[in-house]
Amino acid sequence: IEAGEAARLNELLEPMHAADIADIIEQLDTSGRRAFLTLYSGEIDGEILSEIDESIREEVLEQLPPDVLAEAVREMDSDDVVDLVEDLDEPERADILAVLDDSDRAAVQQSLTYPEYSAGRLMQSEVVTAPGHWTVGEAIDFLRAEEWLPEQFYHIILVDPRRHPIGYVQLGRMLASRRDTPISDLSEDSFRTISAYADEGDVAYAFNQYHLISAPVVDKDDRLVGVITIDDAMSVLDEEHEEDILRLAGVGEDSAITDSVIETLRQRLPWLMVNLVTAIAASLVIAVFEATIQQIVALAVLMPIVASMGGNAGTQTLTVAVRALATKSLTGGNVWRVVRREAAVGLLNGLAFAAVMGVVAWFWFDGMSLAAVIGIAMIINLGIAALAGILIPLTLEKLGADPALASGTFVTTVTDVVGFFAFLGLASAVLL
Amino acid sequence: IEAGEAARLNELLEPMHAADIADIIEQLDTSGRRAFLTLYSGEIDGEILSEIDESIREEVLEQLPPDVLAEAVREMDSDDVVDLVEDLDEPERADILAVLDDSDRAAVQQSLTYPEYSAGRLMQSEVVTAPGHWTVGEAIDFLRAEEWLPEQFYHIILVDPRRHPIGYVQLGRMLASRRDTPISDLSEDSFRTISAYADEGDVAYAFNQYHLISAPVVDKDDRLVGVITIDDAMSVLDEEHEEDILRLAGVGEDSAITDSVIETLRQRLPWLMVNLVTAIAASLVIAVFEATIQQIVALAVLMPIVASMGGNAGTQTLTVAVRALATKSLTGGNVWRVVRREAAVGLLNGLAFAAVMGVVAWFWFDGMSLAAVIGIAMIINLGIAALAGILIPLTLEKLGADPALASGTFVTTVTDVVGFFAFLGLASAVLL
Repeated sequence: IEAGEAARLNELLEPMHAADIADIIEQLDTSGRRAFLTLYSGEIDGEILSEIDESIREEVLEQLPPDVLAEAVREMDSDDVVDLVEDLDEPERADILAVLDDSDRAAVQQSLTYPEYSAGRLMQSEVVTAPGHWTVGEAIDFLRAEEWLPEQFYHIILVDPRRHPIGYVQLGRMLASRRDTPISDLSEDSFRTISAYADEGDVAYAFNQYHLISAPVVDKDDRLVGVITIDDAMSVLDEEHEEDILRLAGVGEDSAITDSVIETLRQRLPWLMVNLVTAIAASLVIAVFEATIQQIVALAVLMPIVASMGGNAGTQTLTVAVRALATKSLTGGNVWRVVRREAAVGLLNGLAFAAVMGVVAWFWFDGMSLAAVIGIAMIINLGIAALAGILIPLTLEKLGADPALASGTFVTTVTDVVGFFAFLGLASAVLL
Repeated sequence: IEAGEAARLNELLEPMHAADIADIIEQLDTSGRRAFLTLYSGEIDGEILSEIDESIREEVLEQLPPDVLAEAVREMDSDDVVDLVEDLDEPERADILAVLDDSDRAAVQQSLTYPEYSAGRLMQSEVVTAPGHWTVGEAIDFLRAEEWLPEQFYHIILVDPRRHPIGYVQLGRMLASRRDTPISDLSEDSFRTISAYADEGDVAYAFNQYHLISAPVVDKDDRLVGVITIDDAMSVLDEEHEEDILRLAGVGEDSAITDSVIETLRQRLPWLMVNLVTAIAASLVIAVFEATIQQIVALAVLMPIVASMGGNAGTQTLTVAVRALATKSLTGGNVWRVVRREAAVGLLNGLAFAAVMGVVAWFWFDGMSLAAVIGIAMIINLGIAALAGILIPLTLEKLGADPALASGTFVTTVTDVVGFFAFLGLASAVLL
């Protein structure tokens, strides 16, 4: 199909949704992408452009003819333009903004004054408002007369004369009411405004928690500056999860499947370097007991088991804790109860696997003292693993850091060091 | 506050959102929860009940007076009732269904005939429809006359006489159009129906991918049976992420912060048992080289470093692969390119850390051959780690299993076994 048949390609892609076309563009390799864009660039519109992943968007932008790009940008909502230009450097950004008309450009530039990852960057400035004193009939007549309306809107925001939002009305309620009903009578209980400076993660949380569909965004003086809709909040929720899961694995949170080899190395090498340092730290513990190992080689065979079980149990606790912090279900009110629960689980796990490993070691190496040593080390390490798994993310959260960030490495460092130390230390004391 | 002052409690909670009250109930311990419900049970309504997490909902249901429960259930949307009763046993389920009026009960029972985690369970049967031949004016008059309308709705679904959905109209477009406009002229391009048998994860993906706000659900004969709204899709997306992250860590996917110690053990012990078996497998590899270790104890000190680096690098690749599969951005079209990229990254990582560890080992143990051995083992293990990290989830996906499920354990088993075998095997061959 990439054999140059533009007409055939157009025909195939015509019934497809913009998001799917964007996915195809993402999944091609660089040369395939170039060929695709040469054939298809005339058809790239604002919708497709805003669906393309950031990691390759700049590459696509460079290959689009200026007139196609200008047309695409003009038809985008202001929040999508913000998303497009915020990662660009100055000359490219200015080029794109230049094609917008004055009011759209002002809206985009206003959005860009808010911090990155804030509600102000996420909102669209296209808002449908009505004065609070109108009736349903007046609002409907206004909407019918209005030439320009956002592509999608689900609420009308009621404002006072100074543009402070005072309520919002679901369109369904408006449609179901008589024309002479005061519109303010229909305002929803769920009404809440979002500060333009709020973190986008908190915005997504609020949408999910309170089942919001759209929410007005206000500036420092409580004046309406835009609106965030649930589809944008859903994308943010998706990205935040992605970040959490990648960070827990020690992968840079901007990793994408479309990254090049060099970019991928740049995302991963630093974390492997951190892991190397902590692995060497654990080895130093082993080095202390070199003489013991020389006398009882069984210790070298068994010690990775103790460390591995601790690492796994710690990661289990850690993951549950990181998720609970992200969903705000681990708070001051229940934190000690949860810590106690994890400690209890850790000790019971320890007892269970002490028994299992004790029996295994006894049969394998025919030594009852060795069985006792690995059993006790297992109890100690699984207990410590549980505590590290919950206390490390809690501490990171307290310090204002992301609890997912690198906490996996911290936890396994603790369990490796404690595991080796407990097992080899006890062995030196008991078996020699 | 739990000192029995019901009036004070009501006053404090009065301005709060149902979701926040549900969170408070979740964060109390069992006895606190009992005291809270005794004081507050009269105020528990359908909204609060549907926000309470599944893990404690049964406990709450048991403590509610029957009349409060009946009232709460009656005011819930059908999808929330389905969510409430689907995990209950027969007598409790029948008790709750008995309080509904006939048409609501029929709707809930209809939903329950669809498989668990399907669109049919997620949908609400309360739908606003209009015949395709109506004008905007006729539709508005119908809505104004209709006594009962869903609490929230954003689209009117157009149906033909046999209740096949033929389009849907955004309320905003209806409000902005003249009364004599044929309603079918306003139907959205984004219109798509969802099968009641579709998996809820695929439904959430479609909402996120196509920016849907609501979508009609159809049965096997393409007849309209309900509607799914984006807030429900957003909750599903949230749960699917939760599942992925918990499964990657080897924690049962139903884990909740409110679980008891016993429940938590039940979720985690099986995975730790799996890990123990694989850790023992890795130990068997070490046992093969016992004689070698006895002669060169430095090997026991260094071997966990090789294994740990492999485990980390494998987990990085694995996490990126699992996420890419979940977001459907790793497909037949780019899979070999991604596999090649991971292999290249693995080898380059290997070269980098071979150099670093070679130097460290050389200085530490003053042996050039030992440095060479650990360097080569590092290259082998990081290369294998990259391949295991991508091929294991791909294989699980091919086999129809969840790629997140237990793949972490498989990957670290591979890297442990390969790491120990490569390092100790090379050492035996070269150093003895």
